[in-house]
Amino acid sequence: MILYNGHKFSTGSEAMANEVYVAGVGMTKFGKSDRSLSEMMVEAATKAFRDARVRSIDYMLIGVMNAEEFTGESNVAAMIADQLGLSGVPSSRVETASSTGSAVFEAGFYAIASGYHRNVLIIAGEKMTHLPTARTTKILAEVIERRERSYGASMPALAAMITQRYQYEAGLSAERLQSVLAKVAIKNHYNGSLNPYAQFRKLISESDYLNSKWVATPLRTYDCAPITDGAVAVVLTSDRRLVKISGLGHATDTLAVRHRDSLTSFRSTRLAAYQAYTMAKVNPQDVSFAEVHDAFTMFEIIGTEDLGFFPAKEGWMAVEEGITSIKGKLPINPSGGLKARGHPVGASGLAQIAEVVWQLRGEVEPARQVSGARIGLTQNIGGLANNNLVVILERTDRYRAIPVYWKPQFDPGKTEPRETFDSEPEVNTGTVETFTTLYTTPEGVPSPLHLAFVRTDLGQMILTRSHEGGLTIGQKVQLEKEGEYLYIRPIASPGTVTEGIKQWLRGSLPFPRRKEENP
Amino acid sequence: MILYNGHKFSTGSEAMANEVYVAGVGMTKFGKSDRSLSEMMVEAATKAFRDARVRSIDYMLIGVMNAEEFTGESNVAAMIADQLGLSGVPSSRVETASSTGSAVFEAGFYAIASGYHRNVLIIAGEKMTHLPTARTTKILAEVIERRERSYGASMPALAAMITQRYQYEAGLSAERLQSVLAKVAIKNHYNGSLNPYAQFRKLISESDYLNSKWVATPLRTYDCAPITDGAVAVVLTSDRRLVKISGLGHATDTLAVRHRDSLTSFRSTRLAAYQAYTMAKVNPQDVSFAEVHDAFTMFEIIGTEDLGFFPAKEGWMAVEEGITSIKGKLPINPSGGLKARGHPVGASGLAQIAEVVWQLRGEVEPARQVSGARIGLTQNIGGLANNNLVVILERTDRYRAIPVYWKPQFDPGKTEPRETFDSEPEVNTGTVETFTTLYTTPEGVPSPLHLAFVRTDLGQMILTRSHEGGLTIGQKVQLEKEGEYLYIRPIASPGTVTEGIKQWLRGSLPFPRRKEENP
Repeated sequence: MILYNGHKFSTGSEAMANEVYVAGVGMTKFGKSDRSLSEMMVEAATKAFRDARVRSIDYMLIGVMNAEEFTGESNVAAMIADQLGLSGVPSSRVETASSTGSAVFEAGFYAIASGYHRNVLIIAGEKMTHLPTARTTKILAEVIERRERSYGASMPALAAMITQRYQYEAGLSAERLQSVLAKVAIKNHYNGSLNPYAQFRKLISESDYLNSKWVATPLRTYDCAPITDGAVAVVLTSDRRLVKISGLGHATDTLAVRHRDSLTSFRSTRLAAYQAYTMAKVNPQDVSFAEVHDAFTMFEIIGTEDLGFFPAKEGWMAVEEGITSIKGKLPINPSGGLKARGHPVGASGLAQIAEVVWQLRGEVEPARQVSGARIGLTQNIGGLANNNLVVILERTDRYRAIPVYWKPQFDPGKTEPRETFDSEPEVNTGTVETFTTLYTTPEGVPSPLHLAFVRTDLGQMILTRSHEGGLTIGQKVQLEKEGEYLYIRPIASPGTVTEGIKQWLRGSLPFPRRKEENP
Repeated sequence: MILYNGHKFSTGSEAMANEVYVAGVGMTKFGKSDRSLSEMMVEAATKAFRDARVRSIDYMLIGVMNAEEFTGESNVAAMIADQLGLSGVPSSRVETASSTGSAVFEAGFYAIASGYHRNVLIIAGEKMTHLPTARTTKILAEVIERRERSYGASMPALAAMITQRYQYEAGLSAERLQSVLAKVAIKNHYNGSLNPYAQFRKLISESDYLNSKWVATPLRTYDCAPITDGAVAVVLTSDRRLVKISGLGHATDTLAVRHRDSLTSFRSTRLAAYQAYTMAKVNPQDVSFAEVHDAFTMFEIIGTEDLGFFPAKEGWMAVEEGITSIKGKLPINPSGGLKARGHPVGASGLAQIAEVVWQLRGEVEPARQVSGARIGLTQNIGGLANNNLVVILERTDRYRAIPVYWKPQFDPGKTEPRETFDSEPEVNTGTVETFTTLYTTPEGVPSPLHLAFVRTDLGQMILTRSHEGGLTIGQKVQLEKEGEYLYIRPIASPGTVTEGIKQWLRGSLPFPRRKEENP
């Protein structure tokens, strides 16, 4: 019914938008904090305001993912304005799950580009560490589509299944996958060790990695970003400054992972990147360095592929070859990333932007300064990659020649969602697409939990549970309904659709087609 | 530290912003619904899209106040995009408590004014009726400043104390106040009876009003907007249409009611109105009709004063004289307002805008059509009036002559917050500023609850409890600490500060000055 024109630029007769610059940046140290959300936000805002040297703030935007459940606060936009002594100044809260930090930045960009505001204060933060881990995991899992959530799937569980599938599609052995993921973690911890704002400042070795606990196979503790408190603030202005916002992209994807065409590439990143590159008239090879959303080590690798830095299923090679290291050709996550800097969910996107600003200004510690940084990019994932943003920032002190007939050399690939159907499966056999064993389960779900995405023999993708681990991708399985869940059981030969089970499956739900069959 | 320049317009050398028009509007019937938040939002969006006749949607914005606690959903922006078959389209959620519906509209306005988007779909909704009333009251009370909330103050309790104070300042008898408030309720129910989207479509009489239960004295059930489910959608476009957004204002105020200069006028409305009038080059007398945030009947009266329609403390006379009736000189809430149309908190601001669009297009039922409507205004309150927005919409089919030297004839009055201090009171006597007896208390608070704002003899405003009702404004009281609360007890003569009680009061908290006294 509703069409989407695939890119964000209307080519009508609009007025020319204002340019938007970063005037100031401020940040709290990330980690476990005894302070409240508003205290952290006030600290970050005060630092950013001091850095910005602007005379006034016309508008404020607050990014927080879930203050309601993490801290019991509502009405946060007005609260923060009040705490800053800015009551009077208009203030709105913006939220897009874990990409909130970028989405609130985007809203600030439009407010200035519109010409209605000159200086906009953007603050993003989250307070998470005071709750038990199982409770935090449950709150974070509320971003997951209801049916997948009902099976006990948490963010790490879904990320683990994506990782398992990547291993299969890239043709990696289990050992090589572990070695690659370890290298991402080691690199980001190394960068984090140089960043005074980072939650983790200790170096880790491959054996530390291999000795860390399984969260959800094949992901270990060191593959997952930690639970973190922190806040970041940025002042945007229409007055010319050193760093300019040159590109901005934002795209959603299906809420359910099972509705996607690919498990190992994120359409929302590709679409957002396409928009950002086109707006900035920049190609992937022009980017000096990037902050990529590494909530899970594998997501950094997938991110670098979806952003067009490396071909699909080859991002892992760039890690092995050190290309993404701080002294490599394309440093990824010089800040330490979500992995080492920490991941206060609503703040991470803005922390990525803060790092890019500092890098472009040449203000970070020498050991992690990207030399000659001119164009920096951030990629921020919302939910399980269904609300992603890409931001491109650029130094304005040198002229950049843009060819008159500039064209993007970036191909976003297939950007239409898969045709999906969500009725109860009409066949009781299928093939394992990917799987995991989840150890750190959400509040109320028994551990360990074996989960698998299965493609039924009629082509439908479903999430299932299994009583046993030891599954393999491509394995034939039988589906059995137990209580409210579908369970899988390995079968030696392709199964047949027994009419009895089919009817029993149908009988357990108000299946639309039944009406026609039995009017 | 941070200055606020008092208005939203930078007068620099920015490019001219794009004009923004309303292309389409859609709404669900408001009331108690069995459908989910996303189903209601999809219905509203589908209607708006059909009305809008645009070819594509570039950007989506979702307004919902607290899906997290009302429905257990997070990641709503991506969820709604997916449910609409719009996955791919960028989608962000905006929230400012009960003014969310206007704040999300504001964000859409900037997105188009910036020139980066052509057609923006804005959806606002809330799902509330499925929870017990005490639970809903508790969730809604989370917008209140923590200390005031800890005393058991709910939104109706604070509104009641504001009403009590208004009665005192306007010099009304209790009977006359009741009669005025009844007239607001009767008027809005009458308008609602003509509105097919309204939750309440029945007429009420003064005796119905007087027989309705006390919620918090002097407010009865019929003074309070109901708990409602509903959703509204608007499509904004940069292409010329009949209705244009000509003014937009947004301002915050202190979170705590006790920090304000006045209890009976909302600075956030006055500041927002000033911005909107200035941007639209419109004065209050140019407005044909308005939708004013009547979450409580008294708020409609205060709103019409703060918007400059009537002088301070005279808005009640306009009600008595029928000026604000549907056939009066300045119809207020022709839709039935929050009172009769219903108040799904995150949606109400956008429902006000939808009504104004329909009125300006001449599309509402003849009996409630404002004749010759040319300029309509909405005023939307966030929290206890600490994040308010004013929107002015205008027909574009006739030329409006604006004098070259147009100046606002609207005076926003004092717009700086009061100097406040929040330490434990250093004196145990004070005067009652206003009071209420709350019958419908939040979950976990015993009923009835007697509350009073007291100005201590040292000039500090504090919220207190009382064991007894029957308080009067101006009454001298003694403060006594019981457990974690301050209680008041009437005294005949002005109290003296007994040194013992003073020290005991100080001893019960980490009082900063103690350090200096006893280093």
